[in-house]
Amino acid sequence: MSSATLAAMPRWEPDAEGRLARAAMALFDRQGYDATTVAQIAEAAGLTKRTFFRYFSDKREVLFNGSRELQDCWVGGINAAPPDAGPMTAVCAGLDRVAELFADRHSFARTRARVVADNPELQERELIKLRSLADAVRAALVDRGVAENTAVLASEAGVTVFHVAFARWVQQDDPAVFRQLMDESLDELRSAVAR
Amino acid sequence: MSSATLAAMPRWEPDAEGRLARAAMALFDRQGYDATTVAQIAEAAGLTKRTFFRYFSDKREVLFNGSRELQDCWVGGINAAPPDAGPMTAVCAGLDRVAELFADRHSFARTRARVVADNPELQERELIKLRSLADAVRAALVDRGVAENTAVLASEAGVTVFHVAFARWVQQDDPAVFRQLMDESLDELRSAVAR
Repeated sequence: MSSATLAAMPRWEPDAEGRLARAAMALFDRQGYDATTVAQIAEAAGLTKRTFFRYFSDKREVLFNGSRELQDCWVGGINAAPPDAGPMTAVCAGLDRVAELFADRHSFARTRARVVADNPELQERELIKLRSLADAVRAALVDRGVAENTAVLASEAGVTVFHVAFARWVQQDDPAVFRQLMDESLDELRSAVAR
Repeated sequence: MSSATLAAMPRWEPDAEGRLARAAMALFDRQGYDATTVAQIAEAAGLTKRTFFRYFSDKREVLFNGSRELQDCWVGGINAAPPDAGPMTAVCAGLDRVAELFADRHSFARTRARVVADNPELQERELIKLRSLADAVRAALVDRGVAENTAVLASEAGVTVFHVAFARWVQQDDPAVFRQLMDESLDELRSAVAR
């Protein structure tokens, strides 16, 4: 292999993605999202801008690239639910997995929630991602044979439960309560719409 | 009154706002939202651009300036509900008024839904308006003494019911079914989350 080829190859950096994400969140939190540049993030992580762009298309993706993983995790849980499980049972089986996925992300999620809350453009992006999430959950239910109308309402209910519980979770000190908060939100939704 | 003062006064045009809105919707529908200019809208309505800007800040507002009226109508219905009405009963009292408000807007709503569905930027705007609507409904419930957590879930349920029923209503030929579609959506939500 020529030295030119070697120079063109990315150098492997242990946990480069995690280091970049943590550096970005610390900077967003300290000096604001708008004031933070990719160059600053890379420098704070001890990496290059080029390495940053191997993992993220822009600084916004540090905040949002987890949403695909969240969606896949939730849909995976729905797909793996027993065939005879009802729509909401399947939705909740997905939420069990989401709670596991998020178990070690409490600190990231708290900072992220503060950053997003301070920035209308990021809030809009968040709404779009929640809409995509609802569509994916609905489609997963339809794939299980759930009627379209029922799938729409069950997916909306699921996203409401997730969204409300998530907002409460980032306000709490104990990361372990996410699943419990989702159960409580679902109970509250059930009570709210009860005759 | 001098003629200079007269010249500066807007000439009153019967139903100028309605004519502009109808002209805009016809153009959006026929040639697309992006391709339509304010000058074209004004010309099609037989009015001036200046008159257009007395009613709308830009062409997008033709599609969205009704959302404030929707919100005020819904909140007004919640405020007028009997003091001992539960949260969801109050939310539904608001939806009764919304159904009345929309009774003669079916044709506008159908075209609007097509235009918004074709344009990602308008879809994002719609999501933001729905979020504001949920916040306003939640605040109206809290003003009635409903606990914050319950108000959050009841308002989310209400917006889901409205949103789902609206999407179905614009697919139907009979404008009179909106209230019925909201009842059906609430029943479906109730069934979806039932134990």
